[in-house]
Amino acid sequence: MALLVLEALSKEAFAPFGEVIEIEGSDWFPINNGSTQRYHKLGMVEVLGEGGYPAISMARGAAFDFPLSINMLERHPLGSQSFIPCNGVPFIVVVAPSLPNGMPDERGLRAFHVRADQGVNYRSGCWHHPLISLGKEGDFIVVDRVGSGHNCDEVVLSTGYRIEAANPP
Amino acid sequence: MALLVLEALSKEAFAPFGEVIEIEGSDWFPINNGSTQRYHKLGMVEVLGEGGYPAISMARGAAFDFPLSINMLERHPLGSQSFIPCNGVPFIVVVAPSLPNGMPDERGLRAFHVRADQGVNYRSGCWHHPLISLGKEGDFIVVDRVGSGHNCDEVVLSTGYRIEAANPP
Repeated sequence: MALLVLEALSKEAFAPFGEVIEIEGSDWFPINNGSTQRYHKLGMVEVLGEGGYPAISMARGAAFDFPLSINMLERHPLGSQSFIPCNGVPFIVVVAPSLPNGMPDERGLRAFHVRADQGVNYRSGCWHHPLISLGKEGDFIVVDRVGSGHNCDEVVLSTGYRIEAANPP
Repeated sequence: MALLVLEALSKEAFAPFGEVIEIEGSDWFPINNGSTQRYHKLGMVEVLGEGGYPAISMARGAAFDFPLSINMLERHPLGSQSFIPCNGVPFIVVVAPSLPNGMPDERGLRAFHVRADQGVNYRSGCWHHPLISLGKEGDFIVVDRVGSGHNCDEVVLSTGYRIEAANPP
């Protein structure tokens, strides 16, 4: 069992894996005669291959608590996938880059603490752990590819990884 | 100035205009070994015409209070547009069907009170009023078409409409 250090999520740190969907630190322009600020194009929705199209779904994730055990990852080769909290719940994101053979590079495994006012949008093919709501059940907006086609791969990692509570990262 | 009666939002009532994005009353299936409930395909993301693609943006809308004045509507002919609250703010949605000539049919004007745990996804071409967060500043997830092309029409209504506080609808 290896220890995986928890990092604070930022646009820069997450850039190799996708986008952070957040208002803080993002550019905006006024719309609606100035009554609304639009934070434009924070995440790109990718839909690849035949038979797929973009849709909005929701996910209700069970509550998890530290210490967390990470034993597998999954990826969606045909599209991006976002998770954006809508009931004020922070969550944990675990991602890894890909090796030349397409498998996750465990030496590059990263764990991020995502604040309740942040979301993530995984690039197509990004290895990531399934949803980990922190402390209470979380409701999330999911924007991803639906339809036909093989769009989910799973791998068991070579060892288990443990994430301990941060103060907060 | 005509009075516009506020209705509670439901999937059925909103069906002519688009979809309600909500967990309540929606079907789900288990994913992630049972730790997550997926409420699948609650809203369809439409992207029409050349030069457009789907993206995730955010909108921060100023707070409005009753009585509300409705004087104009807009529509996006080339794509759907969703507004889903992520900081616990209810909002007001005003929509109208289209006449054969494409203009809004004011006889069919409807106003809906949207709970903080509900979102809406306007169909492409649906006449709707710009964002009206109720009571406090609201942060919303927006999924719509970005890119090139003429994708916003606005019309001034033939008369002003007034929405008064409901108890709650």
